Amino acid sequence: MAHIQLPEGLPGIRGAMAFRPETAKPLNELVEILLHRPNSLTPGERELIATYVSAENDCYYCQTIHGAIAAASLDGDETLVKKVKVDFMNAAISDKLKALLVIAGQVQKGGKHVTAEAVADARAAGATDIEIHDTVLIAAAFCMFNRYVDGLATTQPRDEEMYRERGKRVAREGYITVSKDYMPQAITR
Amino acid sequence: MAHIQLPEGLPGIRGAMAFRPETAKPLNELVEILLHRPNSLTPGERELIATYVSAENDCYYCQTIHGAIAAASLDGDETLVKKVKVDFMNAAISDKLKALLVIAGQVQKGGKHVTAEAVADARAAGATDIEIHDTVLIAAAFCMFNRYVDGLATTQPRDEEMYRERGKRVAREGYITVSKDYMPQAITR
Repeated sequence: MAHIQLPEGLPGIRGAMAFRPETAKPLNELVEILLHRPNSLTPGERELIATYVSAENDCYYCQTIHGAIAAASLDGDETLVKKVKVDFMNAAISDKLKALLVIAGQVQKGGKHVTAEAVADARAAGATDIEIHDTVLIAAAFCMFNRYVDGLATTQPRDEEMYRERGKRVAREGYITVSKDYMPQAITR
Repeated sequence: MAHIQLPEGLPGIRGAMAFRPETAKPLNELVEILLHRPNSLTPGERELIATYVSAENDCYYCQTIHGAIAAASLDGDETLVKKVKVDFMNAAISDKLKALLVIAGQVQKGGKHVTAEAVADARAAGATDIEIHDTVLIAAAFCMFNRYVDGLATTQPRDEEMYRERGKRVAREGYITVSKDYMPQAITR
Protein backbone atom coordinates (compact mmCIF):
# COMPACT_ATOMS: atom_id res chain seq x y z
CA MET A 1 0.00 0.00 0.00
CA ALA A 2 1.29 3.45 -0.89
CA HIS A 3 2.33 5.78 1.95
CA ILE A 4 -0.32 8.32 0.89
CA GLN A 5 -3.74 7.98 -0.77
CA LEU A 6 -2.92 7.89 -4.51
CA PRO A 7 -5.47 7.49 -7.33
CA GLU A 8 -6.22 3.79 -7.90
CA GLY A 9 -5.26 1.82 -10.98
CA LEU A 10 -2.22 3.92 -11.86
CA PRO A 11 1.06 2.10 -11.16
CA GLY A 12 4.41 3.66 -10.30
CA ILE A 13 4.98 7.31 -11.06
CA ARG A 14 1.63 7.60 -12.85
CA GLY A 15 -0.31 7.54 -9.58
CA ALA A 16 2.01 10.14 -8.04
CA MET A 17 1.73 12.36 -11.12
CA ALA A 18 -2.06 12.16 -11.19
CA PHE A 19 -2.08 13.01 -7.46
CA ARG A 20 0.02 16.16 -8.02
CA PRO A 21 -0.30 17.30 -11.64
CA GLU A 22 1.32 20.67 -10.91
CA THR A 23 4.71 19.02 -10.35
CA ALA A 24 4.04 16.30 -12.94
CA LYS A 25 4.07 18.89 -15.72
CA PRO A 26 7.73 19.98 -15.38
CA LEU A 27 8.74 16.37 -14.57
CA ASN A 28 7.23 15.14 -17.84
CA GLU A 29 8.79 18.04 -19.76
CA LEU A 30 12.20 17.26 -18.28
CA VAL A 31 12.10 13.60 -19.22
CA GLU A 32 10.67 14.38 -22.67
CA ILE A 33 13.68 16.63 -23.42
CA LEU A 34 16.26 14.34 -21.82
CA LEU A 35 15.08 11.03 -23.28
CA HIS A 36 12.72 11.55 -26.20
CA ARG A 37 13.45 14.71 -28.21
CA PRO A 38 16.09 14.63 -30.98
CA ASN A 39 19.64 14.49 -29.60
CA SER A 40 23.00 13.23 -30.84
CA LEU A 41 22.48 10.29 -28.45
CA THR A 42 19.62 8.08 -29.70
CA PRO A 43 16.50 7.56 -27.58
CA GLY A 44 17.63 3.93 -27.10
CA GLU A 45 21.03 5.03 -25.75
CA ARG A 46 19.47 7.56 -23.37
CA GLU A 47 16.83 5.07 -22.19
CA LEU A 48 19.63 2.57 -21.47
CA ILE A 49 21.30 5.17 -19.22
CA ALA A 50 17.98 5.74 -17.40
CA THR A 51 17.40 1.98 -17.10
CA TYR A 52 20.90 1.29 -15.79
CA VAL A 53 20.67 3.99 -13.09
CA SER A 54 17.20 2.77 -12.07
CA ALA A 55 18.56 -0.78 -11.76
CA GLU A 56 21.45 0.48 -9.62
CA ASN A 57 18.86 2.23 -7.42
CA ASP A 58 16.84 -1.01 -7.35
CA CYS A 59 13.62 0.68 -8.51
CA TYR A 60 11.52 -2.06 -10.11
CA TYR A 61 8.97 0.18 -11.79
CA CYS A 62 11.50 2.58 -13.35
CA GLN A 63 13.99 -0.04 -14.54
CA THR A 64 11.17 -2.11 -16.06
CA ILE A 65 9.30 0.67 -17.85
CA HIS A 66 12.46 2.42 -19.10
CA GLY A 67 13.94 -0.97 -20.01
CA ALA A 68 10.81 -1.58 -22.09
CA ILE A 69 11.06 1.86 -23.73
CA ALA A 70 14.77 1.18 -24.42
CA ALA A 71 13.95 -2.20 -25.99
CA ALA A 72 11.18 -0.67 -28.11
CA SER A 73 13.73 1.91 -29.32
CA LEU A 74 16.26 -0.85 -30.07
CA ASP A 75 14.17 -3.07 -32.35
CA GLY A 76 12.78 -5.01 -29.39
CA ASP A 77 16.17 -6.21 -28.16
CA GLU A 78 15.30 -7.07 -24.55
CA THR A 79 18.40 -9.24 -24.20
CA LEU A 80 20.62 -6.22 -24.78
CA VAL A 81 18.73 -4.20 -22.17
CA LYS A 82 19.16 -6.97 -19.59
CA LYS A 83 22.87 -7.27 -20.39
CA VAL A 84 23.42 -3.51 -19.97
CA LYS A 85 21.80 -3.61 -16.53
CA VAL A 86 24.13 -6.27 -15.17
CA ASP A 87 27.35 -6.05 -17.25
CA PHE A 88 27.38 -3.12 -19.68
CA MET A 89 31.14 -3.34 -20.26
CA ASN A 90 30.57 -6.61 -22.15
CA ALA A 91 27.34 -5.58 -23.89
CA ALA A 92 27.05 -4.96 -27.64
CA ILE A 93 27.04 -1.17 -27.31
CA SER A 94 29.49 1.51 -28.45
CA ASP A 95 32.61 2.41 -26.47
CA LYS A 96 31.18 5.90 -26.13
CA LEU A 97 28.01 4.60 -24.47
CA LYS A 98 30.08 2.38 -22.18
CA ALA A 99 32.10 5.42 -21.10
CA LEU A 100 28.91 7.42 -20.51
CA LEU A 101 27.45 4.57 -18.44
CA VAL A 102 30.57 4.69 -16.26
CA ILE A 103 29.83 8.37 -15.59
CA ALA A 104 26.14 7.60 -14.95
CA GLY A 105 27.13 4.95 -12.40
CA GLN A 106 29.36 7.47 -10.62
CA VAL A 107 26.54 10.04 -10.51
CA GLN A 108 24.24 7.37 -9.02
CA LYS A 109 26.66 7.00 -6.09
CA GLY A 110 26.88 10.78 -5.65
CA GLY A 111 27.95 13.88 -7.59
CA LYS A 112 31.44 13.94 -6.09
CA HIS A 113 32.10 10.40 -7.33
CA VAL A 114 32.41 11.59 -10.95
CA THR A 115 36.09 11.52 -11.89
CA ALA A 116 38.01 13.65 -14.39
CA GLU A 117 39.40 10.35 -15.72
CA ALA A 118 35.93 8.99 -16.54
CA VAL A 119 35.06 12.26 -18.29
CA ALA A 120 38.35 12.16 -20.25
CA ASP A 121 37.62 8.56 -21.27
CA ALA A 122 34.17 9.56 -22.52
CA ARG A 123 35.64 12.45 -24.48
CA ALA A 124 38.33 10.15 -25.96
CA ALA A 125 35.51 7.81 -27.07
CA GLY A 126 33.89 10.70 -28.93
CA ALA A 127 31.42 12.12 -26.38
CA THR A 128 30.64 15.83 -26.68
CA ASP A 129 30.18 18.23 -23.77
CA ILE A 130 26.41 18.17 -24.30
CA GLU A 131 26.40 14.36 -24.25
CA ILE A 132 28.41 14.35 -21.00
CA HIS A 133 26.09 17.00 -19.55
CA ASP A 134 22.97 15.07 -20.53
CA THR A 135 24.38 11.82 -19.13
CA VAL A 136 25.03 13.51 -15.77
CA LEU A 137 21.56 15.06 -15.75
CA ILE A 138 19.77 11.85 -16.86
CA ALA A 139 21.54 9.90 -14.11
CA ALA A 140 20.81 12.63 -11.54
CA ALA A 141 17.17 12.86 -12.66
CA PHE A 142 16.68 9.12 -12.22
CA CYS A 143 18.10 9.37 -8.70
CA MET A 144 15.09 11.68 -8.23
CA PHE A 145 12.49 9.63 -10.12
CA ASN A 146 13.53 6.36 -8.44
CA ARG A 147 13.30 7.98 -4.98
CA TYR A 148 9.94 9.54 -5.86
CA VAL A 149 8.46 6.22 -7.01
CA ASP A 150 9.87 4.08 -4.17
CA GLY A 151 9.71 6.81 -1.50
CA LEU A 152 5.91 6.95 -1.82
CA ALA A 153 5.71 3.12 -1.92
CA THR A 154 3.73 3.24 -5.17
CA THR A 155 2.06 0.14 -6.64
CA GLN A 156 4.48 -1.65 -8.99
CA PRO A 157 2.75 -4.61 -10.68
CA ARG A 158 4.91 -7.57 -11.79
CA ASP A 159 3.31 -7.75 -15.24
CA GLU A 160 5.98 -7.63 -17.93
CA GLU A 161 3.46 -7.40 -20.76
CA MET A 162 1.94 -4.23 -19.31
CA TYR A 163 5.38 -2.56 -19.27
CA ARG A 164 6.19 -3.89 -22.77
CA GLU A 165 3.01 -2.43 -24.29
CA ARG A 166 3.37 0.87 -22.52
CA GLY A 167 7.06 1.01 -23.46
CA LYS A 168 6.15 0.77 -27.14
CA ARG A 169 3.68 3.63 -26.79
CA VAL A 170 6.08 5.94 -24.96
CA ALA A 171 8.88 5.15 -27.44
CA ARG A 172 6.52 6.09 -30.27
CA GLU A 173 4.60 9.03 -28.82
CA GLY A 174 6.81 10.48 -26.06
CA TYR A 175 6.19 11.21 -22.40
CA ILE A 176 4.03 14.32 -22.62
CA THR A 177 1.53 12.80 -25.05
CA VAL A 178 1.19 9.54 -23.13
CA SER A 179 0.83 11.38 -19.79
CA LYS A 180 -2.44 12.84 -21.08
CA ASP A 181 -4.00 9.43 -20.35
CA TYR A 182 -3.99 10.17 -16.65
CA MET A 183 -3.30 13.88 -16.18
CA PRO A 184 -6.04 16.53 -16.03
CA GLN A 185 -6.29 18.26 -19.40
CA ALA A 186 -5.97 21.68 -17.79
CA ILE A 187 -2.40 20.83 -16.84
CA THR A 188 -1.13 19.00 -19.90
CA ARG A 189 -2.56 21.03 -22.74
CA MET B 1 37.62 23.30 -13.15
CA ALA B 2 34.28 21.98 -14.33
CA HIS B 3 34.20 18.66 -16.21
CA ILE B 4 32.74 20.39 -19.30
CA GLN B 5 33.10 23.91 -20.70
CA LEU B 6 30.45 25.92 -18.86
CA PRO B 7 29.79 29.66 -19.29
CA GLU B 8 32.16 31.67 -17.07
CA GLY B 9 31.16 33.71 -14.05
CA LEU B 10 28.08 31.65 -13.21
CA PRO B 11 28.57 29.53 -10.08
CA GLY B 12 26.89 26.23 -9.24
CA ILE B 13 23.75 25.26 -11.10
CA ARG B 14 23.58 28.63 -12.87
CA GLY B 15 26.44 27.72 -15.21
CA ALA B 16 24.88 24.34 -15.98
CA MET B 17 21.48 25.95 -16.62
CA ALA B 18 22.92 28.60 -18.93
CA PHE B 19 24.79 25.81 -20.80
CA ARG B 20 21.58 23.83 -21.36
CA PRO B 21 18.57 26.18 -21.13
CA GLU B 22 16.21 23.57 -22.61
CA THR B 23 16.46 21.42 -19.48
CA ALA B 24 16.84 24.44 -17.17
CA LYS B 25 13.30 25.54 -17.97
CA PRO B 26 11.47 22.53 -16.44
CA LEU B 27 14.05 22.38 -13.62
CA ASN B 28 13.28 25.98 -12.64
CA GLU B 29 9.55 25.37 -12.95
CA LEU B 30 9.79 22.32 -10.70
CA VAL B 31 11.68 24.14 -7.96
CA GLU B 32 9.41 27.20 -8.24
CA ILE B 33 6.35 25.01 -7.56
CA LEU B 34 7.98 22.89 -4.87
CA LEU B 35 9.67 25.67 -2.90
CA HIS B 36 8.29 29.08 -3.79
CA ARG B 37 4.61 29.00 -4.77
CA PRO B 38 1.91 29.14 -2.07
CA ASN B 39 1.62 25.88 -0.12
CA SER B 40 0.46 24.84 3.35
CA LEU B 41 4.18 24.46 4.17
CA THR B 42 5.84 27.89 4.25
CA PRO B 43 8.70 28.68 1.84
CA GLY B 44 11.03 28.70 4.87
CA GLU B 45 9.96 25.19 5.89
CA ARG B 46 10.36 23.84 2.35
CA GLU B 47 13.75 25.55 1.93
CA LEU B 48 14.88 23.95 5.19
CA ILE B 49 14.01 20.52 3.75
CA ALA B 50 16.01 21.33 0.58
CA THR B 51 18.93 22.65 2.66
CA TYR B 52 18.99 19.63 4.96
CA VAL B 53 19.01 17.13 2.07
CA SER B 54 21.74 19.13 0.28
CA ALA B 55 23.83 19.08 3.47
CA GLU B 56 23.36 15.31 3.76
CA ASN B 57 24.52 15.01 0.15
CA ASP B 58 27.46 17.30 0.99
CA CYS B 59 26.74 19.73 -1.84
CA TYR B 60 28.29 23.06 -0.80
CA TYR B 61 26.60 25.22 -3.42
CA CYS B 62 23.08 23.86 -2.86
CA GLN B 63 23.16 23.80 0.93
CA THR B 64 24.57 27.34 1.02
CA ILE B 65 22.21 28.98 -1.46
CA HIS B 66 19.12 27.17 -0.17
CA GLY B 67 20.26 27.82 3.40
CA ALA B 68 20.43 31.52 2.48
CA ILE B 69 16.97 31.43 0.88
CA ALA B 70 15.65 29.62 3.98
CA ALA B 71 17.19 32.24 6.28
CA ALA B 72 15.77 35.07 4.15
CA SER B 73 12.34 33.41 4.45
CA LEU B 74 12.79 33.06 8.25
CA ASP B 75 13.54 36.69 9.18
CA GLY B 76 17.25 36.20 8.57
CA ASP B 77 17.65 33.44 11.18
CA GLU B 78 20.91 31.83 9.96
CA THR B 79 21.47 30.18 13.33
CA LEU B 80 18.26 28.17 12.94
CA VAL B 81 19.29 27.06 9.44
CA LYS B 82 22.68 25.85 10.71
CA LYS B 83 21.00 24.01 13.61
CA VAL B 84 18.58 22.22 11.27
CA LYS B 85 21.47 21.00 9.13
CA VAL B 86 23.29 19.32 12.00
CA ASP B 87 20.63 18.52 14.63
CA PHE B 88 17.08 19.25 13.49
CA MET B 89 15.50 17.20 16.28
CA ASN B 90 16.66 19.85 18.77
CA ALA B 91 16.02 22.88 16.55
CA ALA B 92 13.26 25.44 17.22
CA ILE B 93 10.94 24.08 14.53
CA SER B 94 7.53 22.41 14.71
CA ASP B 95 7.09 18.72 15.46
CA LYS B 96 5.50 18.39 12.03
CA LEU B 97 8.57 19.77 10.28
CA LYS B 98 10.82 17.50 12.35
CA ALA B 99 8.74 14.49 11.24
CA LEU B 100 8.94 15.62 7.60
CA LEU B 101 12.72 16.05 7.89
CA VAL B 102 12.94 12.44 9.10
CA ILE B 103 11.19 11.37 5.88
CA ALA B 104 13.44 13.64 3.80
CA GLY B 105 16.52 12.05 5.37
CA GLN B 106 15.18 8.60 4.51
CA VAL B 107 14.56 9.62 0.89
CA GLN B 108 18.13 10.95 0.70
CA LYS B 109 19.42 7.46 1.51
CA GLY B 110 17.09 5.86 -1.06
CA GLY B 111 13.38 5.55 -1.79
CA LYS B 112 13.06 2.17 -0.07
CA HIS B 113 14.38 3.64 3.19
CA VAL B 114 11.12 5.52 3.81
CA THR B 115 9.22 3.73 6.58
CA ALA B 116 5.49 3.50 7.22
CA GLU B 117 6.34 4.48 10.80
CA ALA B 118 7.96 7.76 9.75
CA VAL B 119 4.94 8.54 7.57
CA ALA B 120 2.55 7.70 10.44
CA ASP B 121 4.56 9.97 12.76
CA ALA B 122 4.31 12.84 10.26
CA ARG B 123 0.58 12.32 9.93
CA ALA B 124 0.19 12.20 13.73
CA ALA B 125 2.04 15.54 13.87
CA GLY B 126 -0.53 17.02 11.48
CA ALA B 127 1.08 16.52 8.04
CA THR B 128 -1.34 16.13 5.12
CA ASP B 129 -0.88 13.74 2.20
CA ILE B 130 0.19 16.64 -0.03
CA GLU B 131 2.78 17.75 2.53
CA ILE B 132 4.16 14.21 2.75
CA HIS B 133 4.17 13.98 -1.06
CA ASP B 134 5.94 17.30 -1.44
CA THR B 135 8.52 16.38 1.21
CA VAL B 136 9.34 13.16 -0.66
CA LEU B 137 9.57 15.01 -3.98
CA ILE B 138 11.62 17.92 -2.58
CA ALA B 139 14.08 15.46 -1.04
CA ALA B 140 14.20 13.39 -4.25
CA ALA B 141 14.63 16.51 -6.40
CA PHE B 142 17.58 17.67 -4.31
CA CYS B 143 19.19 14.25 -4.76
CA MET B 144 19.03 15.25 -8.45
CA PHE B 145 20.11 18.89 -8.10
CA ASN B 146 23.01 18.03 -5.79
CA ARG B 147 24.27 15.35 -8.21
CA TYR B 148 23.86 17.73 -11.15
CA VAL B 149 25.87 20.50 -9.47
CA ASP B 150 28.64 18.28 -8.08
CA GLY B 151 28.61 15.74 -10.94
CA LEU B 152 29.68 18.46 -13.39
CA ALA B 153 32.24 19.83 -10.87
CA THR B 154 30.75 23.33 -11.15
CA THR B 155 32.46 26.37 -9.62
CA GLN B 156 31.25 26.88 -6.02
CA PRO B 157 32.75 30.08 -4.58
CA ARG B 158 33.24 30.29 -0.80
CA ASP B 159 31.70 33.76 -0.53
CA GLU B 160 28.91 33.76 2.04
CA GLU B 161 27.83 37.29 1.22
CA MET B 162 27.18 36.36 -2.43
CA TYR B 163 24.85 33.53 -1.36
CA ARG B 164 23.19 35.77 1.26
CA GLU B 165 22.36 38.50 -1.26
CA ARG B 166 21.17 36.06 -3.88
CA GLY B 167 19.16 34.18 -1.25
CA LYS B 168 17.25 37.36 -0.40
CA ARG B 169 16.42 37.93 -4.07
CA VAL B 170 15.22 34.36 -4.71
CA ALA B 171 13.12 34.42 -1.52
CA ARG B 172 11.49 37.65 -2.73
CA GLU B 173 11.16 37.04 -6.48
CA GLY B 174 11.21 33.26 -6.95
CA TYR B 175 13.33 30.97 -9.11
CA ILE B 176 11.88 31.62 -12.55
CA THR B 177 12.20 35.41 -12.30
CA VAL B 178 15.76 35.32 -10.98
CA SER B 179 16.83 32.75 -13.59
CA LYS B 180 16.18 35.36 -16.27
CA ASP B 181 19.50 36.96 -15.23
CA TYR B 182 21.41 34.21 -16.99
CA MET B 183 18.97 32.31 -19.20
CA PRO B 184 18.23 33.23 -22.82
CA GLN B 185 15.00 35.21 -23.00
CA ALA B 186 13.64 32.87 -25.67
CA ILE B 187 13.59 30.09 -23.09
CA THR B 188 12.36 31.86 -19.97
CA ARG B 189 9.63 34.09 -21.30
